[in-house]
Amino acid sequence: MKPPLFEAVPNFSEGRDDDTIARIVADVRSVEGIRILGLHSDPDHNRSVLTFAGEETAVLEAAVALAEACAREIDLTAQTGEHPRMGSLDVLPFVPLEGATLDDASRLARQVGERVGAIGFLVYLYEAAATGPHRRNLADVRRGGYDGLAARLEDPLWQPDYGPRELDPRKGAVAVGARPFLVAFNAYLDTDDIEVARAIARMVRERDGGLPGLKALGLEVGGRAQVSMNLTDLQKTSMPVALEAVREAALEHGASVESTELVGLAPLEAVLQTARHYLGLRELDREHVLEAALWDAP
Amino acid sequence: MKPPLFEAVPNFSEGRDDDTIARIVADVRSVEGIRILGLHSDPDHNRSVLTFAGEETAVLEAAVALAEACAREIDLTAQTGEHPRMGSLDVLPFVPLEGATLDDASRLARQVGERVGAIGFLVYLYEAAATGPHRRNLADVRRGGYDGLAARLEDPLWQPDYGPRELDPRKGAVAVGARPFLVAFNAYLDTDDIEVARAIARMVRERDGGLPGLKALGLEVGGRAQVSMNLTDLQKTSMPVALEAVREAALEHGASVESTELVGLAPLEAVLQTARHYLGLRELDREHVLEAALWDAP
Repeated sequence: MKPPLFEAVPNFSEGRDDDTIARIVADVRSVEGIRILGLHSDPDHNRSVLTFAGEETAVLEAAVALAEACAREIDLTAQTGEHPRMGSLDVLPFVPLEGATLDDASRLARQVGERVGAIGFLVYLYEAAATGPHRRNLADVRRGGYDGLAARLEDPLWQPDYGPRELDPRKGAVAVGARPFLVAFNAYLDTDDIEVARAIARMVRERDGGLPGLKALGLEVGGRAQVSMNLTDLQKTSMPVALEAVREAALEHGASVESTELVGLAPLEAVLQTARHYLGLRELDREHVLEAALWDAP
Repeated sequence: MKPPLFEAVPNFSEGRDDDTIARIVADVRSVEGIRILGLHSDPDHNRSVLTFAGEETAVLEAAVALAEACAREIDLTAQTGEHPRMGSLDVLPFVPLEGATLDDASRLARQVGERVGAIGFLVYLYEAAATGPHRRNLADVRRGGYDGLAARLEDPLWQPDYGPRELDPRKGAVAVGARPFLVAFNAYLDTDDIEVARAIARMVRERDGGLPGLKALGLEVGGRAQVSMNLTDLQKTSMPVALEAVREAALEHGASVESTELVGLAPLEAVLQTARHYLGLRELDREHVLEAALWDAP
């Protein structure tokens, strides 16, 4: 029985100074058992998204090391950027991977929240870790951003879950949450008509009576209409099922899907589901994949 | 840069006595760095197929340990079984995995052949490791089986590549070879007419002008006609391309594919090819699969 694994996808408010970013990431990497899966820095938004994973204790310590590094390296009073940030360490979601549940990730988020609060950040728990229904949605938690924090501290509904009574303006507030692993999967249409993409999104997404666990939006990206999807529960709606629904809905609008893209990572099971679906395979599991068999072998 | 990996898929002539089989496998497993990927024992054929993998030196030592265990545990003069065996260790193919080429596997096969010959087996190199064109095909190397070995030793064309001048009747001969990784992929038809399966096999396989790297036969399995395929070069013909050709050929015979099955292992790339093909993904590589990213991460 392998220990459960967790992923963290923190956003921090520095996307321009390579040296600063490197120092922050080095502090995370230095925690034993942590694997860095990705780093994307955006100079316009002056913001970086880091992805790391490991066992519970390693991810906990790495998240605390990250918060300490952000507190040391970033001064929000001297910061600018397009993204509506609210803290130097801004968002810190935990995602259950192999062997872990969303409840495990929520517990981890709360443990981290307490430690990060002790460093001096105002901490708001969100999504599965939220302490009230009005705090579940990240957009609600972030409303008002950094500039609105002082006013928010006056509102009894918006007291932080952890952290000091007063705002430390260098650090600000951080949203610490737990959410399921999601697959970001986009379909590009053979049209530039964003209204077609929006209509298709409405036909397929759960919110409007479509497929369970599927979120979808119509966007325009690079001159093409795109149906941008988040698959939040692959057991309910897999990539092939989502795509075939989009293809069918597109047909009704006289459009078709030209290509698709995966943003970020997909679990192996999502790829296996796809192969099973289209190949009509009676069985295809992790143990049938050579590399997985090698990794898993005793 | 990770060291190249190899797989070995030996067949040995004991499929009934669990204790004997367990002792043989234990000797292979005891070699450091060896991962056992599979063991299939067949009492009717009195034969076992073992799959193991590891780095070059580990696979070399494990193969030698296996030959020593077979020499110790199996006496072919006291053996019966339906399969036309020729040795206690009967067939020993090496397959290049990640980072390894077929030439690397051939070199490994020859090194192993020399060591196994020194133990007292007659060794015939075959396929990519063969020392002459008439020895490439395993069926030719095995012709005559155990009972024909004495006569074969009189034939100048069939002198062993390694091993003693005289047959040791307890051990017999072993075919040691190198071959590419192949995917065994079968399509079941909605008919029991084996002639339909044979006609489809002829339409799709390379030998009869079909898809490169694709071998195919029509069989009857469990009351269903089956197109049994070996994909020997996934870069030339992938699983989806092979299956779509079978589906198209089946249509011409008024049949259709009901389901498919994978026998043994498929490399991750075969599954990724399938997802790219059917989803129309612009990009889907190993680095986009969460588990692979975790395994590969520094």
